[in-house]
Amino acid sequence: MKHFLLATCATILLVGCANEASDTPKEATKAEQPAVTPEVQKLIETAKNGSHAYDIVESLTTEIGPRLAGTDAEARARDWAVAKFKEIGLENVRVQPFTIPGWERGEETASIVAPYAQQLYITSLGGSVATPSGGITAPIAFFPTFEDLEAAPAGGLDGKIVFISGRMEKAPDGAGYGPANRKRRSGATEAAKRGAVAVVIRSVGTDSHRFPHTGQMRYAEDTPKIPIAALSAPDADQLERVLSRGEKVTIKMTLTPRVTGDRPSGNIIGEIIGSESPEEIVLISGHLDSWDLGTGAIDDGAGIGISAGASQVILEAGLKPKRTIRVVAFGAEEVGLLGGFAYVDANRAELDNHVLATESDFGATAPYEVQSGVSAGEDVLKQIADATGLPMSDVRTNGGPDIGPMSREGVPTMRFQQDGTDYFDLHHTPDDTLDKIKPEDMATNAAAFAVMAWMASEADTNFRDTSDSASTE
Amino acid sequence: MKHFLLATCATILLVGCANEASDTPKEATKAEQPAVTPEVQKLIETAKNGSHAYDIVESLTTEIGPRLAGTDAEARARDWAVAKFKEIGLENVRVQPFTIPGWERGEETASIVAPYAQQLYITSLGGSVATPSGGITAPIAFFPTFEDLEAAPAGGLDGKIVFISGRMEKAPDGAGYGPANRKRRSGATEAAKRGAVAVVIRSVGTDSHRFPHTGQMRYAEDTPKIPIAALSAPDADQLERVLSRGEKVTIKMTLTPRVTGDRPSGNIIGEIIGSESPEEIVLISGHLDSWDLGTGAIDDGAGIGISAGASQVILEAGLKPKRTIRVVAFGAEEVGLLGGFAYVDANRAELDNHVLATESDFGATAPYEVQSGVSAGEDVLKQIADATGLPMSDVRTNGGPDIGPMSREGVPTMRFQQDGTDYFDLHHTPDDTLDKIKPEDMATNAAAFAVMAWMASEADTNFRDTSDSASTE
Repeated sequence: MKHFLLATCATILLVGCANEASDTPKEATKAEQPAVTPEVQKLIETAKNGSHAYDIVESLTTEIGPRLAGTDAEARARDWAVAKFKEIGLENVRVQPFTIPGWERGEETASIVAPYAQQLYITSLGGSVATPSGGITAPIAFFPTFEDLEAAPAGGLDGKIVFISGRMEKAPDGAGYGPANRKRRSGATEAAKRGAVAVVIRSVGTDSHRFPHTGQMRYAEDTPKIPIAALSAPDADQLERVLSRGEKVTIKMTLTPRVTGDRPSGNIIGEIIGSESPEEIVLISGHLDSWDLGTGAIDDGAGIGISAGASQVILEAGLKPKRTIRVVAFGAEEVGLLGGFAYVDANRAELDNHVLATESDFGATAPYEVQSGVSAGEDVLKQIADATGLPMSDVRTNGGPDIGPMSREGVPTMRFQQDGTDYFDLHHTPDDTLDKIKPEDMATNAAAFAVMAWMASEADTNFRDTSDSASTE
Repeated sequence: MKHFLLATCATILLVGCANEASDTPKEATKAEQPAVTPEVQKLIETAKNGSHAYDIVESLTTEIGPRLAGTDAEARARDWAVAKFKEIGLENVRVQPFTIPGWERGEETASIVAPYAQQLYITSLGGSVATPSGGITAPIAFFPTFEDLEAAPAGGLDGKIVFISGRMEKAPDGAGYGPANRKRRSGATEAAKRGAVAVVIRSVGTDSHRFPHTGQMRYAEDTPKIPIAALSAPDADQLERVLSRGEKVTIKMTLTPRVTGDRPSGNIIGEIIGSESPEEIVLISGHLDSWDLGTGAIDDGAGIGISAGASQVILEAGLKPKRTIRVVAFGAEEVGLLGGFAYVDANRAELDNHVLATESDFGATAPYEVQSGVSAGEDVLKQIADATGLPMSDVRTNGGPDIGPMSREGVPTMRFQQDGTDYFDLHHTPDDTLDKIKPEDMATNAAAFAVMAWMASEADTNFRDTSDSASTE
């Protein structure tokens, strides 16, 4: 009976509940009622009564602001993280340094030159080369979708600025991002192959505000490097309308980003050292770097707040986990998951001791389901889901962007899937700022992370299927 | 019976109706049922079945885009308006030229220098002087509201950049704008009086996006002119948070606007000449100029679309008004209602013949009430309200910003009050773009304007109280 009441309460605390708790004997004795221990209950109460996660993202976004990978701002953010982790009471706080190829934004302007002269709002994609100093003025070659560009014949775009439109679909799980993002990653290469001199894309985003969305692009080795920038959605609409008039449309764009050579980055690590199996690690994380346009609140100050805040909740609740709970603030995620790869390189020897890993990197809204990336011990994930009032999902996870590299090395993962319906309204824009975050949602996330880290540290599983059948599958 | 059905239909057409039309005899014979003539019915049907108003704002915002008063873009907009008015079929299409003091925006950048270096998003207020070319770097003196600054003693702000916060309240009628706008209009003067070197204000707006809102400011004659700019709401929040840490906060701002001397502007006039009393004028209008950051869709491309679209609806419906319906696209509204004043100067001799005047300059949403600015003939306004399915308001109007000057000269006015709850989310920002406008709302507005213009042209009143008692009041 006590268990049931606690479980009901936990559910209410984490996800809210429109109904009063029912304590009919029939329901109370159901075998599937989650086992919420007093410790879990205390974690949830501590998180929900405090503002641990929100206070951390408030501090990071206010005192550092934007923190592009490899810049002085990211370096200041590392100092901030070291100090914050120590302030929270984490042990073994350290920076795991690595080097990245630096890139910094410059000026970025664009305009329609003809037939209807007017300004366009654009931003360089991360990694883009600059235009010549006087800019590029050229006629537009329009492709409604990236697939249309891929289907275009070789040549034929000589001297043109390619405009790739294509809209991203909204979805709670962000499923529209991958398809929409192909033009961002490969648009410059596909356009250059066909002779184009530059590219503008409709922003990869789901809003209709005058913010272009930045994000990393890639050049192929064997193709000329041409500048690429994103237009805000209203500007892409406008350019399409102007093109619809049927006249030749000429635009001018000037971008002055520059490559800054090898630059320092790093992951910041802090721990609550396990009391019984300190060598076994439960890893919770977010990424410290952000794009330079906003202050990186939802991407991913929120993840830093949620993971570090969860560790603070555990410490404040006075709990002593059996396994080590490791908090990682990854560096240089936005420019190619470089912190996630560096972590694997630096910690390869202990990856087998990583029991379970997750990252928060999908904004600040409350989670709606638990996804599994484990090969054993799924019953423990189910218990975590029950304790946090969430359903288990059928969707498999790799634990998050920076967890992907260690997941591929066999580290078991899980993820609290957050509601990302509006995430790509703000993602990689100047509008990614603290005002978009609700403190109560941050507390819900911190509670979920604290419960997961605690229950995984107490569980009698390493989430790995080590049977013969598994190894020969 | 026929009247009742038409009235019900008109109500449904204009404001929508969740209920099916009821034609019980009891309701059908009610004395207060509005008298909707077949002509009015035809106007409403023509407007609602077409996209006259939307097509016009689409054309203006696409083919001209931003059109700051006194610039080449506003001149192109005049050419566009002359062509559009003729295309619609208006007669006597002409430009009423006048000259204004020109001002154009330059570069505008700002950043927090200490204690937490990061970019701020700002924009010059219209009319602001420039900073020195190297910018101004100075500590912040913070005033939570404009009233706090007014209450500050003389001196004491020497060498400071004044930051005035204060939030604008949302309201359907925009009632929060006036109070919030005091800092924009007079902030520079009040700060300069006390020795400040520059001013930043929290944007006069109701959104929480990273767009600063521009708008006209004024200098007092006897006070030093210091630069003034607006911060976006998230940047104002950020600066307040940084200040809340208690350290001295230094910012740098660089603005390079310039005064361009005497520049041409003008009002564009077109008419449907009255068949019986061509000298009597019903005036419907919007303003042609916009701020330079957006494409002036809601402010005030919508008003141009609604007023010109309404005249197109009347012509397309094949109606011949008794009085002249005059459409005016005012120039240079944003910089001080200069078109409205110029209109009075140029048309003083015929102001007594202006029967009724209105302007649409509050966005593109549907109206919710009719406001009166007449001294007689209010029964006709009530009939217009009934025919458009709207209630009469107790609020008195001066007809709109550009109608204000002629209203003060005795011209009777009225106004369809639109729902402006979200108007100040977009007002004077880069985000004032066509995607924010719903075609169906534009059709509703065009129908209302067409009905008003038609009914006022047919009415047996000049909306003026010419009795002795009125003249001796």
